[in-house]
Amino acid sequence: MPSWSERVLHLLNRMNNFYSTGSCRASCLRFEVDGAQVGWIRPHVASLLSRYPQVFTAPRGGAVSLCQSLDSYEGRSEAVHEVLLALRQEDSLTCLRGWRDERYSVMPRFSDPPVMWMERAATSLFGVKRYGVHLNAYTVSDGGEVSMWLARRSSTKQTYPGLLDNMAAGGLAAGVGIKHTLVKECQEEACVPVDTAMTARPAATVSYTYEDEEGVFPESQFVFDLEVPAGFRPRVGDGEVQDFYLLPIEKVKELLATDDFKPNSAMVVLDFLIRHSLVEPDTEPHYQEFVAGLHQTL
Amino acid sequence: MPSWSERVLHLLNRMNNFYSTGSCRASCLRFEVDGAQVGWIRPHVASLLSRYPQVFTAPRGGAVSLCQSLDSYEGRSEAVHEVLLALRQEDSLTCLRGWRDERYSVMPRFSDPPVMWMERAATSLFGVKRYGVHLNAYTVSDGGEVSMWLARRSSTKQTYPGLLDNMAAGGLAAGVGIKHTLVKECQEEACVPVDTAMTARPAATVSYTYEDEEGVFPESQFVFDLEVPAGFRPRVGDGEVQDFYLLPIEKVKELLATDDFKPNSAMVVLDFLIRHSLVEPDTEPHYQEFVAGLHQTL
Repeated sequence: MPSWSERVLHLLNRMNNFYSTGSCRASCLRFEVDGAQVGWIRPHVASLLSRYPQVFTAPRGGAVSLCQSLDSYEGRSEAVHEVLLALRQEDSLTCLRGWRDERYSVMPRFSDPPVMWMERAATSLFGVKRYGVHLNAYTVSDGGEVSMWLARRSSTKQTYPGLLDNMAAGGLAAGVGIKHTLVKECQEEACVPVDTAMTARPAATVSYTYEDEEGVFPESQFVFDLEVPAGFRPRVGDGEVQDFYLLPIEKVKELLATDDFKPNSAMVVLDFLIRHSLVEPDTEPHYQEFVAGLHQTL
Repeated sequence: MPSWSERVLHLLNRMNNFYSTGSCRASCLRFEVDGAQVGWIRPHVASLLSRYPQVFTAPRGGAVSLCQSLDSYEGRSEAVHEVLLALRQEDSLTCLRGWRDERYSVMPRFSDPPVMWMERAATSLFGVKRYGVHLNAYTVSDGGEVSMWLARRSSTKQTYPGLLDNMAAGGLAAGVGIKHTLVKECQEEACVPVDTAMTARPAATVSYTYEDEEGVFPESQFVFDLEVPAGFRPRVGDGEVQDFYLLPIEKVKELLATDDFKPNSAMVVLDFLIRHSLVEPDTEPHYQEFVAGLHQTL
């Protein structure tokens, strides 16, 4: 059985496997809009897109672009949406079965103006970066012992059913603020009163890129910490969660390195452990690699 | 005048310029010991080293290696040290004028056993990764206002004379613990009592790689936070510092984006601002890029 430290390193490597030698990165085409890269497209997806020359250019110089005639936010979004609806109809791309009717912003960097929106379920086809919020909710006892609230995801969730998760989390939809999204997810998923959720404090981002059979997933999560009093209890809200547990941090630490934990949420907990001195560099040999593995970007 | 946000982004890009297109990275040779990469060597340094074929192999497959006959920690260290003493005598490499008689460990990753030691002043010639400790010392007023203690480096320091710096910092010498180094630097540079220094808490690493005329500098700093009471005052210790200032965090924030601040120490302060919610993602457009820029690794 590998050590905790080795299992955590394995988790980080897996969630950054797009950077590994042997990943699809070498064969991927850049996805460009108006001359700027906004994603990565695999060759088999590029072939499918070549059937829509009024929307996508043929691969050239290692890139697939949106046609120049599509020069507005709405124009680009609608044209790509039409293509995606047609592809969804064919049912040849499994990721489109997860259609959510959630619009994600597409931009080269988070600080750039969005160039279009795209249905959430399609972003991995285009390797478009997705942003979200994650919450570490925790209590500190009078003696200084830290415990953390974890959620058990509903067994009917589309992704990672039944796995452990942060108390609240969610994707950042087009045009919605970061803290606003966090407060909303706290309310919807865990029935946290707005006044309490508003005391959550931003503390980090966690960034990584993985690939799997459904595509390329470059993601950044905005991480918040929320200290709640001992008497606080979250309640199941919109049905995305089946249960909540308050666990001693040692137990949480152990669990995050198992297959029972949603992997990106485990990374958010690891980031918490490091920031709160619950993992220390003199006793954790991979400390620096842990921190680096939580912040990889293209 | 560029905005604060743009100036910080510029700082991060400068401290990671080894990753930029146009850096010497493409022309550098890997420096390998026993088959594992431990650094980067520029072509003109490789030429100099080729005069010592009993120590260094000729460049092959993009790498310069230590000769296989050097198969022990002490054997490798002494052989390279002899070469460095000879090169120092010639005075053709300006970085060797900064000779310090400080032994740094050389290893592929921090968690790996060291394969040799090397004089600190020579590490940039070989692009060997250096590790250090940095301290954010701060106070919190009853009203929650954060102030930070900064040091003004002595005008006779070899590197970055007269610039602002963290209250204490130092390199990690071969075989010395991380927290131990932090406590020692706190005592030596700022006369912080051991009991106080021991309450410093590890919270992060900051990693980056820059190149300049003296070589390639891949570095990782282990970052500690130390909250001190309002009455605390550091005192000038070993003469590496000329003065200490307690400044409101808004002033510190402004200063870190100026040329008056030692650049890697400015990064450590930026990391503090993010972890302590003193920079927020809804109002700082480059928030995620800031975090990523603080944690680049090869």
